[in-house]
Amino acid sequence: MDPYVIQMNSNGNFPSVLDVHVNIGGKNSKQGKVKGRKARWSVKPSEMSNKTFNPIRTIVDGMKVKPNPNKTMISLSIGDPTVFGNLPTDPEVTQAMKDALDSGKYNGYAPSIGYLSSREEVASYYHCPEAPLEAKDVILTSGCSQAIELCLAVLANPGQNILVPRPGFSLYRTLAESMGIEVKLYNLLPEKSWKIDLKQLEALIDEKTACLIVNNPSNPCGSVFSKSHLQKILAVAARQCVPILADEIYGDMVFSDSKFEPLANLSTNVPILSCGGLAKRWLVPGWRLGWILIHDRRNIFGNEIRDGLVKLSQRILGPCTLVQGALKNILRRTPQEFYHNTLSFLKSNADLCYGALSAIPGLRPVRPSGAMYLMVEIEMEHFPEFENDVEFTERLVAEQSVHCLPATCFEYPNFFRVVITVPEVMMLEACGRIQEFCEQHYHCAEGSQEECDK
Amino acid sequence: MDPYVIQMNSNGNFPSVLDVHVNIGGKNSKQGKVKGRKARWSVKPSEMSNKTFNPIRTIVDGMKVKPNPNKTMISLSIGDPTVFGNLPTDPEVTQAMKDALDSGKYNGYAPSIGYLSSREEVASYYHCPEAPLEAKDVILTSGCSQAIELCLAVLANPGQNILVPRPGFSLYRTLAESMGIEVKLYNLLPEKSWKIDLKQLEALIDEKTACLIVNNPSNPCGSVFSKSHLQKILAVAARQCVPILADEIYGDMVFSDSKFEPLANLSTNVPILSCGGLAKRWLVPGWRLGWILIHDRRNIFGNEIRDGLVKLSQRILGPCTLVQGALKNILRRTPQEFYHNTLSFLKSNADLCYGALSAIPGLRPVRPSGAMYLMVEIEMEHFPEFENDVEFTERLVAEQSVHCLPATCFEYPNFFRVVITVPEVMMLEACGRIQEFCEQHYHCAEGSQEECDK
Repeated sequence: MDPYVIQMNSNGNFPSVLDVHVNIGGKNSKQGKVKGRKARWSVKPSEMSNKTFNPIRTIVDGMKVKPNPNKTMISLSIGDPTVFGNLPTDPEVTQAMKDALDSGKYNGYAPSIGYLSSREEVASYYHCPEAPLEAKDVILTSGCSQAIELCLAVLANPGQNILVPRPGFSLYRTLAESMGIEVKLYNLLPEKSWKIDLKQLEALIDEKTACLIVNNPSNPCGSVFSKSHLQKILAVAARQCVPILADEIYGDMVFSDSKFEPLANLSTNVPILSCGGLAKRWLVPGWRLGWILIHDRRNIFGNEIRDGLVKLSQRILGPCTLVQGALKNILRRTPQEFYHNTLSFLKSNADLCYGALSAIPGLRPVRPSGAMYLMVEIEMEHFPEFENDVEFTERLVAEQSVHCLPATCFEYPNFFRVVITVPEVMMLEACGRIQEFCEQHYHCAEGSQEECDK
Repeated sequence: MDPYVIQMNSNGNFPSVLDVHVNIGGKNSKQGKVKGRKARWSVKPSEMSNKTFNPIRTIVDGMKVKPNPNKTMISLSIGDPTVFGNLPTDPEVTQAMKDALDSGKYNGYAPSIGYLSSREEVASYYHCPEAPLEAKDVILTSGCSQAIELCLAVLANPGQNILVPRPGFSLYRTLAESMGIEVKLYNLLPEKSWKIDLKQLEALIDEKTACLIVNNPSNPCGSVFSKSHLQKILAVAARQCVPILADEIYGDMVFSDSKFEPLANLSTNVPILSCGGLAKRWLVPGWRLGWILIHDRRNIFGNEIRDGLVKLSQRILGPCTLVQGALKNILRRTPQEFYHNTLSFLKSNADLCYGALSAIPGLRPVRPSGAMYLMVEIEMEHFPEFENDVEFTERLVAEQSVHCLPATCFEYPNFFRVVITVPEVMMLEACGRIQEFCEQHYHCAEGSQEECDK
């Protein structure tokens, strides 16, 4: 038996006289014409890549950010706690990586959803009686971004929609639209510490709604939902039968005066995919280790969704095996002081920033309770020179060399986001410059003289 | 100005009397009914996840692989050079990672396409006069799998087709079909050292063909294309104006008697996306560092495809920053002896395996020239007990505890693939057992008595 021949046969009508047709080296081969293929070069990017849109990149790249040469640049724009070197990860975390390297055991392929032993560690770390977890409920991913991507990819089809917070992290839209999934925005209410407008949320749900994204603690708001508010969110999901994607990458990163409740711990029936990772709490966002925790106590996801996630994970395989191998010691050996110190630093910077900015006429900061951010409302009527938050932050860079992200990046115009991971001195200096900037540009609104007499 | 109100307005027709409709806590809220949403739980996996199919996983999981309890298992099935511990990576590679860790400079986010400095290193490492490369031509990815995914995602739309080698790596189909891209198989010819059947290849091209995947050196064949054959492949692509995805993850992994030619070095006009990574040559597949090299000397991809790749890379961000940070020293400091030793080991194992198996009646191995594999034809007419390669390899496990992948996994029935990275003693032992197995099951084919008299 000659496999060659078999292969040829199996290929059906093989045109043995092909070379007669083909005009070797010629531009338009008959072959091409026969198939209706114009043999001209025309390589266009796919619809998917055309639909992939990162608002932050686009808005920031579009900003004319030429800092004031006389003032050193202070960037409060990037949600990366490592850029200033003041928040290194814990030595135990680094040591865990070295041990994984030296063991030589973590250079090969892991299962596409991660090593069993590593998934067991994550499961037992987040396990609790109300929300039990086993290794089978954990999928390790290349960062929390891939965790969110896999969850959306398994839950939603093109033409369906997902519910996304406004203001909210731009990746949700970027991923959804690249997959042809519609984004519906539900509102967070600044005057209610960014609680969800539950009525408006519920009004958005229709037969095409594939999932509800709940981001707690919140980027960009730095808000933390109370237990009772989370229960109300779950009530909406239960009533409308909408599964939840809980983006809890800032989980446990809350200040002493508030408490983080993992959404799944409060749910008895709503199926929840909780996304997290090492990025923020362990201060190593570049290491790209994330996870999905599958909470499905009523077996609503069932094996279908679980299998779907496993299959999707096989498309590009999981996170770096070294980080997977280090996970056990990272989770077990990182001292409580490390978490504590990070949070008390963030808390004091948040208080400092909030205090300074609330004293500035024309600005209205919203006090954060966690994560690494603080949102500030710009009372635009007092800054008639500037058309919007983008121009406001643009000019802030040009005049004061302070870079904050305009909240238009988070679909929330007339606010800007401050990253509070910078060293205290920079935080103070930045607030001082923002004050100077606002004082120079503040105008009294019509018929609000009293305000200006303050 | 109250942003809350503005948000409400901006949200258009906000149903202010919503609470009247909503039957709080009730199971079927009017709200739901109005929107035609049945408030019943029904969460189904997406079409994409349903379309994501890994043949190897499915076939192997389907095999009844219960090894013979009296013989230790020898697995020649997994393309992971690290599993037996006999092929550790070079100490310089490990040291480069420790240095990256200790520097503390590689914990934060990198650009989604990778650090500029790391991309410069890859560019200069692969740069050559015929195929010049700069940092802008390099995109770092989470393993070569993601590199291939990004290339397919930017080049092809659902409904288009790609040309894939048979036998070939199953990931091409897995990725393509998950994206709704059709796979057309072109034949590799075993009796011609797995050269491409160029006529059949060209006959497959039609107006919907988005790209041609060329895998050299080949998994599963272990074959290496000659310069002249690569030029013929380029001629087809040029004639038909089809861009090429060159999967060169086994690049430079060829035995002394043959030479690896990067496809792009031979092309003056065909746009090529060359995919590679650290996985195989540096023996660290789990680290998930891959890359795309963009070769576009006639500006046929243009900025559109480049921008498309960048945008797609922003969906889940790039590979682990520690490995990116280590890349410079990995590429510069890994000694030539390391590459040499790996290859001479593979070469001697390949010779040993080829020699042993060609002496076995009923088997017809194809001598490899590179990579880590060897394909063996099963003359099925001499093994009437077995229906196909799957059953053959299944029984080989059951009786001899030797596990090889049936080439049905690579769309090539009646062959099996041998992984040649195992220690020499295991290689010998495995060949001995395969011989015993074949002798026990070999039957003379009709009218071929002379064969049996040998």
